[in-house]
Amino acid sequence: MRDRGGRTVGIVGAGQLARMMAQAAIPLDIRLVLLAASASDGAARVVPDVIVGNPDDPDALDELARRCDVITFDHELVDPRLLADLERQGHRVWPSSSTMSVAQDKRRQRTELSAAGMPVPAFAAIESLADIEAFGAGTGWPVVLKASRGGYDGRGVWIVQTAAAARSVLDGATANGTVLLAEQCLPLDREFAVIVARREGGEVVTYPVTETVQRAGICRELRVPCALAPNLAWEAEDIAISIAGMYGLVGIMAVEFFLVGDRILVNELAPRPHNSGHWTIEGAATSQFAQHLRAVLDLPLGATAPTAPAIVTINLLGPDSGADPWDRLAAGLATPGAHVHLYGKTARPGRKLGHVTAVGETLGAARGAATSAAARLLDKPGNPTLS
Amino acid sequence: MRDRGGRTVGIVGAGQLARMMAQAAIPLDIRLVLLAASASDGAARVVPDVIVGNPDDPDALDELARRCDVITFDHELVDPRLLADLERQGHRVWPSSSTMSVAQDKRRQRTELSAAGMPVPAFAAIESLADIEAFGAGTGWPVVLKASRGGYDGRGVWIVQTAAAARSVLDGATANGTVLLAEQCLPLDREFAVIVARREGGEVVTYPVTETVQRAGICRELRVPCALAPNLAWEAEDIAISIAGMYGLVGIMAVEFFLVGDRILVNELAPRPHNSGHWTIEGAATSQFAQHLRAVLDLPLGATAPTAPAIVTINLLGPDSGADPWDRLAAGLATPGAHVHLYGKTARPGRKLGHVTAVGETLGAARGAATSAAARLLDKPGNPTLS
Repeated sequence: MRDRGGRTVGIVGAGQLARMMAQAAIPLDIRLVLLAASASDGAARVVPDVIVGNPDDPDALDELARRCDVITFDHELVDPRLLADLERQGHRVWPSSSTMSVAQDKRRQRTELSAAGMPVPAFAAIESLADIEAFGAGTGWPVVLKASRGGYDGRGVWIVQTAAAARSVLDGATANGTVLLAEQCLPLDREFAVIVARREGGEVVTYPVTETVQRAGICRELRVPCALAPNLAWEAEDIAISIAGMYGLVGIMAVEFFLVGDRILVNELAPRPHNSGHWTIEGAATSQFAQHLRAVLDLPLGATAPTAPAIVTINLLGPDSGADPWDRLAAGLATPGAHVHLYGKTARPGRKLGHVTAVGETLGAARGAATSAAARLLDKPGNPTLS
Repeated sequence: MRDRGGRTVGIVGAGQLARMMAQAAIPLDIRLVLLAASASDGAARVVPDVIVGNPDDPDALDELARRCDVITFDHELVDPRLLADLERQGHRVWPSSSTMSVAQDKRRQRTELSAAGMPVPAFAAIESLADIEAFGAGTGWPVVLKASRGGYDGRGVWIVQTAAAARSVLDGATANGTVLLAEQCLPLDREFAVIVARREGGEVVTYPVTETVQRAGICRELRVPCALAPNLAWEAEDIAISIAGMYGLVGIMAVEFFLVGDRILVNELAPRPHNSGHWTIEGAATSQFAQHLRAVLDLPLGATAPTAPAIVTINLLGPDSGADPWDRLAAGLATPGAHVHLYGKTARPGRKLGHVTAVGETLGAARGAATSAAARLLDKPGNPTLS
C-alpha cells in the first residue's frame, strides 16, 4: 500500500453507487474503504478494503474514519449526530452532517427551500388529522401524504382521496413514529433532475438537465437532452446552483423537479451520486461518480459536456418473471453500442439490478439501442420500461 | 459471492493492464482473480481476489485455474508448457498456450509471418557471428540485433555498426542464453498499431489504426486517426485480421507495424490489451479491456467506432527529476477534458506511471489538452513527450 496519504475515501454503504464510484476511483488512483452492511453487497465484491458493519454503529464509523481521509456516502441512512461527532473530532465528512441532515428530512427541505424563495409544491407539516383536512380544504382533494424520512422509489408516498383514507395513513404513521407532510396533488407533466457538483471554496458545475421518466414512483428512463423550454432548463440549473451554495454542498447533489404546466417546482434533494446521473458514465466528459470523488477530495472539477447529441439510460428492474439480466448478458451485449451495467445484486421483482446506456445522434437512435438491450436482458420483448 | 459460475476471469499478472481490466469488469459483473507477483502490484490494490505467487509456479497456476472459468494475461512471461498442461486438464486458457508461445518468440513470429506471405522486415535467425556478417553483407550495415524473447520498451534491441560491435552483443547473448535475430536497419518513417479482437467461432473486429509515436524504443504518444494513406490503413487492418485468424486468436491482439516509404511491415505481435490501445477507454465505444474480457468469455464483441473525430493519448513516463504524477493530480485535473489514468506504481525515471487521453474535434485540440495535463503531471513545462 502506498503510504503518502491524502487520497483515501471512505464510503458509508456498498450498493451500486459505491460500486460505480469504485470504477471511477481506479484511474485516479483513489483508494476506497467501504462500510458495508454485508460482505456480499455489490460494491464490497469489487473493493479490497471493506469494513462489515452497521452505518449507525459509532465504532464502525470510527474505524472507517481512521482508515480514510474523507467520509462520503452511498446512501443517506446515517444518523447525522454521529457524523457531527466525527466532524468535531476533526474528520472530514462530505457532504457535511448538516447537508445529510437536510437530505433526510423532506419536511425540512420544503420549509427551508420555500423560505429561501425557491418554487416548491404547496405543502404543510402534519401533526393531526385536522392539519390534513385544513390542507385538503385549501388545495382540494386528493392530497399527497409523504413520510418525511426514509421514503424512496415510491415507498412512503400515499395519495388519499378522503379524510377517512388520510386518517388510516396517519394512524399507521403515528404507530411507526413516521413524521408526515402533506403536498398538493399536482398534475405532473414531466419530471427532471439537475446534477450539481460543488467543491470547498465554491467551484461549482452542473450537468445538462435530465428528463427522468417515472412509473409508479420509480425512475425507469433518463433522456438527455430534456424536452424542456430553454428558459426553464436555465431556471432549473440556477436553482440547483443556489441550493448547492445555500447548503454549502461538497460533492454531488441531485435536485429533482416537477414540471407542472409552465412551471418547475423543486421536489427533493439527494446529496450523493444519483440514479438520474447514471447517463454521465458514457454520456459526459466526467461521470458523476468521478466528479463526486473529485469534489470530496477538493480536486478540480471535470468538464460536464455531453459526449454525444443524445443519451438514453434505461433502468433494469427485476421483472415479475424472475428473469435475471446476469443470465442474459450475452444477449444484452449483442446490441451494438449499448453499455450494460450490472450491479451484482440478486434478482428480485422490482429491484434495480442494473442499467443500460446508449449514446447516439438522436434520442430515437439512442433509445432504440438502450431499449433493445434492456428488452433482451430482462426477457421482456415489449417495452422494457413498462412494468 | 454469487455462485452461478461461468464468469470469473483469472489474470496472470497484476500490472496496469490487469488494473484497467478490473475497471472494465465492474459494469459487466465479471469477477476477477489475479495471480500477482506482489500484493502491492497496481491491480492487486484494486481487486479483492489475489493469489500472490510466481507465474511460473505450477501450483500457483493450478490454484488460479481452479478459481476461475478462463485464464488470461497481463503479460507474456509465462511458460507455454505450463499453459498447455492446464489446457490438457480441461482449463480454458485464452489466448491459447500456442498463441502465447508465438508471442514470446520474435524469431518464430518473423519466420511464420514471412512464410504466410505477410510483409515483414528482412531478417535472419542468428547462431553465429558469421550469420550476422552474412546478413550485414546482404542488407548493409548497421544491423539491428534483437533478443527473440523478453525484450520490451527498447530493451533487448541493439543497433550495431560493425562486426566487432556485433561480436560483443553476441558474446553477451550467448552468455545469457539469449537467442538473437538480425533485422535490416530500416529508415522508419512512422510506426502504427492495429488492435484486433477475435472470439471463438471467428467473430472479429478491429479498431481504427493508431499512430504510435516512439522515442528510444518507448511509445510516448498515440494518435487517432493516424496519418496513413487509406489503402495502407486497410492493408494493416486486413493483415491484423489475417494474423488473428492464422493463430486462432481469442482475445485482443496488438499488431505493430513499421511504415518504410510507402510500405507497411509487420513488426511484432502482443496477444493481450496493449499500450497502443489505451486511447480506446474514452475514445472508442468499447474499450480494449472490456473487449478482451468479452472475447475470452465468448460474449459478443462490442462496437469499435471512435467516440470523437480525434483522440490523443500521452504516456506518463517517470521523469529524471523524480517528479511523481500522483503528487500532481490536482494540477493535472485542472485541464478540462483531459482523462488522467494513474497506475498506482512507485515513480522511477523512465517507468510508465500512467497516461492521459483527450478527445476533440481535431488532433491539435486533443493533443493540446493531453499535453497540458501531462506537462503538469510530470512537472515538465516543455513537451512532456520528449525525454
